[in-house]
Amino acid sequence: MDAIHDFLLQNRERHQGALADLVRIPSVSALNAHKDDMRSAAEWVADALRRAGAPEATVHETGGNPIVVGGWRKPADDAPTVLIYAHYDVQPPDPLDLWTSPPFEPVIRDGLMFGRGASDDKAGVLTAITACEALTQTLGRPPVGVTLLIEGEEEIGSPNLRAFMEQHRDELAADVVVSADSVMWDHDTPSLVLGGRGIAAADITLRTSDHDLHSGLFGGIAPNATLALAHLLATLVSPDGAIMVDGFYDGVDPASAQPTDATRKAPFDLEAMLAKEGIGAAWGEPGVDPLVRNWHRPTLEVNGFHGGFGGDGSKTVIPAEAKAKITCRLVPGHVPADVLAAIERHVEQHAPPYATVQVERHPGSAAAFALSRDDPALAPAAEALAAVYGHPPLEMSLGGTLPFADLVGQLLGRSPVMLGWSMPDERLHAPDEFFRLENLELGARVYAEFLIRLAG
Amino acid sequence: MDAIHDFLLQNRERHQGALADLVRIPSVSALNAHKDDMRSAAEWVADALRRAGAPEATVHETGGNPIVVGGWRKPADDAPTVLIYAHYDVQPPDPLDLWTSPPFEPVIRDGLMFGRGASDDKAGVLTAITACEALTQTLGRPPVGVTLLIEGEEEIGSPNLRAFMEQHRDELAADVVVSADSVMWDHDTPSLVLGGRGIAAADITLRTSDHDLHSGLFGGIAPNATLALAHLLATLVSPDGAIMVDGFYDGVDPASAQPTDATRKAPFDLEAMLAKEGIGAAWGEPGVDPLVRNWHRPTLEVNGFHGGFGGDGSKTVIPAEAKAKITCRLVPGHVPADVLAAIERHVEQHAPPYATVQVERHPGSAAAFALSRDDPALAPAAEALAAVYGHPPLEMSLGGTLPFADLVGQLLGRSPVMLGWSMPDERLHAPDEFFRLENLELGARVYAEFLIRLAG
Repeated sequence: MDAIHDFLLQNRERHQGALADLVRIPSVSALNAHKDDMRSAAEWVADALRRAGAPEATVHETGGNPIVVGGWRKPADDAPTVLIYAHYDVQPPDPLDLWTSPPFEPVIRDGLMFGRGASDDKAGVLTAITACEALTQTLGRPPVGVTLLIEGEEEIGSPNLRAFMEQHRDELAADVVVSADSVMWDHDTPSLVLGGRGIAAADITLRTSDHDLHSGLFGGIAPNATLALAHLLATLVSPDGAIMVDGFYDGVDPASAQPTDATRKAPFDLEAMLAKEGIGAAWGEPGVDPLVRNWHRPTLEVNGFHGGFGGDGSKTVIPAEAKAKITCRLVPGHVPADVLAAIERHVEQHAPPYATVQVERHPGSAAAFALSRDDPALAPAAEALAAVYGHPPLEMSLGGTLPFADLVGQLLGRSPVMLGWSMPDERLHAPDEFFRLENLELGARVYAEFLIRLAG
Repeated sequence: MDAIHDFLLQNRERHQGALADLVRIPSVSALNAHKDDMRSAAEWVADALRRAGAPEATVHETGGNPIVVGGWRKPADDAPTVLIYAHYDVQPPDPLDLWTSPPFEPVIRDGLMFGRGASDDKAGVLTAITACEALTQTLGRPPVGVTLLIEGEEEIGSPNLRAFMEQHRDELAADVVVSADSVMWDHDTPSLVLGGRGIAAADITLRTSDHDLHSGLFGGIAPNATLALAHLLATLVSPDGAIMVDGFYDGVDPASAQPTDATRKAPFDLEAMLAKEGIGAAWGEPGVDPLVRNWHRPTLEVNGFHGGFGGDGSKTVIPAEAKAKITCRLVPGHVPADVLAAIERHVEQHAPPYATVQVERHPGSAAAFALSRDDPALAPAAEALAAVYGHPPLEMSLGGTLPFADLVGQLLGRSPVMLGWSMPDERLHAPDEFFRLENLELGARVYAEFLIRLAG
C-alpha cells in the first residue's frame, strides 16, 4: 500500500485538477438547455477512465443522457467482479446570487473546492477512477474485475437507468455492488451506510379561474389560487410536522419510529447542526427523535411554491393558478406508487369545490433500500476504512435516496455498499457546494484497500 | 351638443390613434426598468393637453414619477372649477405568455383595443382631454375652469401624490372633483359610483434556515419555509373565506354585510360573471351576498406566493425562504395603518417558533371613500349620463381603490364623482386588457355635457 500512497501523493495536483475540469462542465440534468454539457461530461468521464488505464470505456446512448460503462475484466476465474456506481450529473445551481463564486468556475479556498457537483457526485466519480489508476500504476491492474457504471440522470431520478441495466445485464454482472455516491458521517468519522430512503415526487397545480383577476373588481367574489393551494398544502402536513395523508404510512413498520442501537451510538449533535445551518429549531414528526426521523421515517416536503405576482412592489391580482412541487422520502415497506396514489386521493378529497387541482407524478420514483449484514462486501469495506482511518467505521443510515440502490436490488438481488466522501455539511444541492479535497486521496486509498481485500 | 358630436365623429380615427400612441409607451410604474418610459408618457400627456388647446400644461417633478397638471382657468369669477384626475401609469404586463398580442403593441380587434393600460387608465386620460378639445373647438374653450391632474403612480399606491397636492394646493383648488379613473356597471348601463374600497399592502417573508437544504440530509430535521408560510397564510383567511385576523374588522359597521337598495337593484348576474371569467364558484366572507362583499366588505388577498424551486422537473431542496405579497381592500371605518398593525400582530402570534417572519408594509395605503349625496357634481353627472345614454344611471359602488379619492377627501374635504368608461370585463391588471373604443367618443360626450351643466 505504500506504493499506492506514494503514487497518490505524487499525483495530487493532477487529480485535483481533473476534478476541477469535470466541475467546470455544467452538467445539470434537470435543465434541457444543458443537453450538450451532459454529453461533454460523459465523454470526459470515459476519457478519464482510459487515462486511468481501463481497457474498456464506452459512452452509451440512452433515451436521456449518456451512460458511461468501463473498467477491467476480472483477472482470473475465481476473482470477483465489483460494480461501482457514480453519476456525473449535478443539481441546478440556482439561486445563483447566493454563490460566493460562480458555480461552474471551481475555486479552492482553504483546501475546499467550491463548485456545483464538486461533492455530489463528481468527487465520487474521480475517487473510484483514481483508485483504479493507482492500482494499475503500482500493481499493473486492479486485482478484481471492476465495472464502473457512471450515469447522468441521478439528480432527476434516473429515469433511463432501469432499461439500460436490463439491456446490459451481462456486461454489468457483478458479485459485489458499490456506490461511490454516498456520504460519510463527518470528516473524522468513517462510516458504513446500511440503508437509505426512497423518493417519490409530484407537482400539484391548482386553478381557480381562467386568468388572473383584478382584486378590486373581483375581490369578495372570486377565489384565490395561491391561498387555496396554501390551505391544501396545510392539510398534507400539520404545523407540528405530522403527515396527515390517509394511507401514507401503509406498510411502514411503526417500530421504525423508535431509536435503534445505531441512532443511539451516532455522535449526532443536533444543536451544533442547527447552529451551523442557521436552522431555528428541529422540526418533523412529533414524538420521534430527529435522527430517527432523518434515517428511518418518511417525509413530505414542499420543494417549491409559486403563484401570482413575485416582482417588486404591488400587483393587485387574484392569482388564477398556483403550483407546488413536492417530494416524499420513503422508508422500507413503502411502495412509491402507493404513496403517490395516497397523495392523489388526499388532494382529490381536500381540493376546494371552486378549484381544479391536478397532481402530476414525476418519473424516477425509488423505494428505500437496506443492506444485508451478510453482504460479502461489508467486511472488506469495514476493514478498508479501519485500515486507512485507524479506527472502525460508524454504522449509519442515509436520509437521502440512491435510485440506483433500489434498481440494483431489483435487478441483481443485492444492495450496494456505500463508499463515498461527501459530507453532510458540504451544501449538496445548495449554493456554495464544496468538497474537502484531501478526501479525493483518502477515498482513493480506501477504494484501493477495499479492492485488494475483495481479491482475498 | 350637435357640433361637439360632429367634431368627435370627424376626429374619431385621430383620437383612437392617440390612445394607441399612449398605450405604446410601456409606463409600468411598479418596475424600475421603466423609469424613462414614465417620463415619456408624462411628456406625451402634457403635449396632448397642449394640442387640445389647454393654455397650461406642465410636467412636474416629484420624488417618483412626474405628475402632469394643466387646463383652463375659469372664464368668469362665478364659474366653478373642476379638478379632473386620471393616471398614465399601468400595471406590469406579466404573465407575458398569456397575451394574444404583445401588451405594448396596441391592436384593434372587433372594435376593442387590446394593450396594457388601454382601459386602465389611458382611455380615462384621453376621454377627459378629448372632451375639453371638443369644447375648445366648438365653444372656444370649456365653459368652466378645468384642471387636469394626471399622475404616474396610481398602480403603486400614489406614494408621492399627497406631498404634491399639498405643495400645489392653490393650483389644484376646485369646487368639484372628478375621477376619470373609474368603471361603469357594464357597456349598456351608465352608472354613478358612490363609494370605493381602500387598500393596504404588505409583504410577508418567512425564513427557516440560512440557505436551502438537501431534503435527504435534512428531511425530518429542518423545517420547510414554503410549508410554514402556507400554514401561516392559512391562519389569515379560513378555507371558506372568513378573515381570521384579530382586530381586522375593528371600526367596520357590521350592518355593511347586509344588502342595500343599490345592491338589490343592481343587475348583477353572478353565474354569468363566473362563467365569463372561468371562475369555479363564488368565494368570500360566509353568509354575505357576493355583490355586498365586493362593494362593502373588506378582503385579504394573497397576490403572490414564491418560495423554493420553480423550474422544470424536481429539485430536492428544503426551501430556506418563502415570500407572500398580500393586499387588503378596506371599507369605511377602516384605518389602513390599523389593519396592517392587526396583520403584524397576527403574524407575530402565529409565526412558528422555528422561523423568523418579517412583515414589510408597502407605501401607498388608502382609506375607503363614500360620496356625499349633496355633492354639487352628482346631479350634473347624472343628467349628463342620462342625456347621452337615454336613461338614468345606476347607483353602484366600487370594489377597487382610488388612492386619489382618499387623498382629495382629506385635502379638499370632497370625494370625487367618478366618470370613467372602463368595464369590469376589460381584463384590467390581467393579460389581454382591452378597451371598447366607441366609449372614447361616448365618454367625451358625457364629459362635455357634464361641464356644460356645471357651468349652469
